[in-house]
Amino acid sequence: MTKSIEFFFDFISPYGWFAAERIGVLAHSHSRTVDWRPLLLGVTVKQAMGLPALLETPLKGAYVIRDAARSARFYGLPWRPPTPMSFSSVSAARAVIWAIAQGDLDVEALVLALYRRAWAEGGDISKPDAVADVAATIGLDRARIRTGLESPEVKDGLRAAVADAIARGIFGSPFVVVDGEPFWGSDRLHMVERWLESAW
Amino acid sequence: MTKSIEFFFDFISPYGWFAAERIGVLAHSHSRTVDWRPLLLGVTVKQAMGLPALLETPLKGAYVIRDAARSARFYGLPWRPPTPMSFSSVSAARAVIWAIAQGDLDVEALVLALYRRAWAEGGDISKPDAVADVAATIGLDRARIRTGLESPEVKDGLRAAVADAIARGIFGSPFVVVDGEPFWGSDRLHMVERWLESAW
Repeated sequence: MTKSIEFFFDFISPYGWFAAERIGVLAHSHSRTVDWRPLLLGVTVKQAMGLPALLETPLKGAYVIRDAARSARFYGLPWRPPTPMSFSSVSAARAVIWAIAQGDLDVEALVLALYRRAWAEGGDISKPDAVADVAATIGLDRARIRTGLESPEVKDGLRAAVADAIARGIFGSPFVVVDGEPFWGSDRLHMVERWLESAW
Repeated sequence: MTKSIEFFFDFISPYGWFAAERIGVLAHSHSRTVDWRPLLLGVTVKQAMGLPALLETPLKGAYVIRDAARSARFYGLPWRPPTPMSFSSVSAARAVIWAIAQGDLDVEALVLALYRRAWAEGGDISKPDAVADVAATIGLDRARIRTGLESPEVKDGLRAAVADAIARGIFGSPFVVVDGEPFWGSDRLHMVERWLESAW
């Protein structure tokens, strides 16, 4: 059975996007699959950590906006963030939980389509209809996903995923776990790669 | 006149150490000098940002201890942190302010000696005498630095340096400023290097 890499992310996090664009290739080159794990940092950061939202943190908030734009250029990605940059990622995260549950969908394609709509096109992905629209662009059935977003199983699934991540000490986006080893940040992917080659 | 790179750091930050070990070579290879700028994150994080200390932050504190140890191995540095890992870096920071004011001392050597004593040897650098001991190991005059640590000019100089950094939006360690462009984190040095080659 193919071993996987767990990839935790929140759609409100552009750093999650930068890493999402690269984790698939990185995993594949080490014969791994990616387990896509949506998070809700609003819950984690405010409730579990007792901190303000990143963009509302004095000094750091302003820096992060500049660093994210510069990082996009560094990685060669287009950068057109949504307005406002902070939005509800609940529907988008539920879409990923729904897609995983279907068992045969291309979850990576959905994750990247949603991320790009938000951060490369400045689109709104906060509403269920907007999420379904994005899903339709990669060939998913708009009506099926729209129904899925309202299902109690999907809602409970996301709640459980967020709680499980917090219980495991996972608090940021992106957050990668390889064979039990935790790595936080898009700027840790080179260490993830080294770990896959030879845990040091 | 040689252009410089501003390097902000706090001795309580092992990430500041990881970067301090590399910034000199990086600067030199781009014909720059390093302006060593000690910070007191206790002031910045608690007073200016309203956040708890990093090690006391739920979830993140435990991760950082693991990540710092792993990062030291990644960079090939010895890792023997002080006990407790949190300590007062005021005297060590004052020593750097004092050394800069002398005008002809090897500030980099002093910074690295203090950092290594704390994080590679697990030594205590929280007391003025301990700081003077470290300074003596690189040939500085123990009595002169001991006197300098108590001088009002040095104390005021550090206070002003911390306030100035906060006013400029600098909030972490390491924090590098190149030609006005800010970079936070030891994991941004590759971007600093790229910026020195061609600001993008």
